[in-house]
Amino acid sequence: MQTTVIPLGTAGAVPIRDRHLSAVAVERKGRMLLFDCGEGAQYRLLHAGLNRARVDAIFITHLHGDHIYGLPGLAATIGQLHRHEPITVIGPEGLNRFLSAAAGVSEQEMPYGLSVMELDPASTVDGAVVYETDEFVVTARPLQHRIPTVGYRLEEKPRRGRFHPERARELGVTDPRDFGRLHKGERVTMSDGHVVEPEQVVGPERPGISFAYCTDTRPCAGSRQLSRDVDLVIHDATFAHELQEQAVETGHSTAREAAEVARDAKARRLLLTHISARYESADQLVADARDVFPHTEAAIELKRYMLDPREKWAGN
Amino acid sequence: MQTTVIPLGTAGAVPIRDRHLSAVAVERKGRMLLFDCGEGAQYRLLHAGLNRARVDAIFITHLHGDHIYGLPGLAATIGQLHRHEPITVIGPEGLNRFLSAAAGVSEQEMPYGLSVMELDPASTVDGAVVYETDEFVVTARPLQHRIPTVGYRLEEKPRRGRFHPERARELGVTDPRDFGRLHKGERVTMSDGHVVEPEQVVGPERPGISFAYCTDTRPCAGSRQLSRDVDLVIHDATFAHELQEQAVETGHSTAREAAEVARDAKARRLLLTHISARYESADQLVADARDVFPHTEAAIELKRYMLDPREKWAGN
Repeated sequence: MQTTVIPLGTAGAVPIRDRHLSAVAVERKGRMLLFDCGEGAQYRLLHAGLNRARVDAIFITHLHGDHIYGLPGLAATIGQLHRHEPITVIGPEGLNRFLSAAAGVSEQEMPYGLSVMELDPASTVDGAVVYETDEFVVTARPLQHRIPTVGYRLEEKPRRGRFHPERARELGVTDPRDFGRLHKGERVTMSDGHVVEPEQVVGPERPGISFAYCTDTRPCAGSRQLSRDVDLVIHDATFAHELQEQAVETGHSTAREAAEVARDAKARRLLLTHISARYESADQLVADARDVFPHTEAAIELKRYMLDPREKWAGN
Repeated sequence: MQTTVIPLGTAGAVPIRDRHLSAVAVERKGRMLLFDCGEGAQYRLLHAGLNRARVDAIFITHLHGDHIYGLPGLAATIGQLHRHEPITVIGPEGLNRFLSAAAGVSEQEMPYGLSVMELDPASTVDGAVVYETDEFVVTARPLQHRIPTVGYRLEEKPRRGRFHPERARELGVTDPRDFGRLHKGERVTMSDGHVVEPEQVVGPERPGISFAYCTDTRPCAGSRQLSRDVDLVIHDATFAHELQEQAVETGHSTAREAAEVARDAKARRLLLTHISARYESADQLVADARDVFPHTEAAIELKRYMLDPREKWAGN
């Protein structure tokens, strides 16, 4: 089962013609999680061919306008599309006040619940699970920016191990329903009284994909921990290496610093985001980063980055 | 001198692929006035090739999200573009609270002043001048929607009449500086003591262009008065004729009703806007409207509708 990461906006603060404000969709089976929701996120979902009404949760890194001004409009549009299932919005303190002010002035009625969960970044130092479904866990950790900011790590829960029918048959199991029970982790007692344990016929659990989203931030413990061994990290790379001083001043990262985080965290792949409007092309940023971490690209908006766990299991 | 009307967004409430949320730019000499500021207006200015930092005033019809959610982002971007001249934002009560909440949560600093003027639509019944420059006057009047709403009429101030040098020469005027004085409206005393009055050598004042923006609204006295004799009116046309009941219920107009307003007001040209997402093509709406008022089009986003007063004077 594929999980797809789709950058919707990769601009730093000021959008330019082909770079929109911060947002990333993670899609699986037609349902979405969003990371940040800059102005225009609802258009970008449309342009990506994604169904706006199927966003289940939105994770906000911090309350600078370029990361949240798309929230009220997306919430309103989803309301008009007759969604009835609740949506969870998670982010630093102040989110509720902002959303209430925007919805209140407009006297909008939402046919679905918008459940807002405010985080104190300081309380996430050891990694706080902020969202969990049957398939995913999302963890937050503090980032280092000018205002309270968190980054997120999304992890698919491990899948059941591979079932080996030939081993089961060797142990005398023949009923297909017993195959199913064993694969689910139940022991099976045969007609002659002997017991077959799941461990005898099922391989080890297989890890799911993992993804980290770290912006806006300086390189920091939080960004490294969130990116630990991930399949894909999207990291703040506002500036080229030569503007490192400006990155420090403004609480951002250079492309090279993003690459150092990916390298130190042993991530498999890095996408650069939050690119300053001064760079019409991101070529220099990519070159800076690849010196340190070769598996780097500038995130391409609307491109579908497939994360298929089966790739990891190919050797099993 | 041309004034250009550029629809930036023509969608009713829910954007679709080629229709964005409500906003119209009026451009003259590279400076802009905006009417409504739905989400994405800053992108649409960019796509239209207009300089976002050169918006001098923004006129908001009402506080439904699809007309205002582009304001905080545009204001923030203009701030990043180092504008220092103030911007005026005009609209119904609540605008200030909304803008403050959005900017406050984000702790943004604006290098320019944002001067917000709140209107009570009821106080504009006789037409209230809400904005004036050397070249333009903008008047507001109440519209009829579900919440307090105003429409706007922009009028260029009349230009000085045409100067007739041959008549001046007949009256004995020869000094070019006297030509200038007469054209500016000053009387000139000749060396022999006789006086030449400007009226003798200058034609009648020539009217500037006029433009009305009426959405969201039922057809009403306000929309007819705003549209009186205008060169161009952009009017709410959310629904086709067959859904008139729904137009009444939701406080919108059908395309046919928009055409009746344009016809009754003796407007020269009508553009339909705020088209419901149910109409992928606006053909039916245009057909409905043309039965009543032939000079109708569906507003085309990013098209430049030139309003050149010289066209009016061609006969002079």
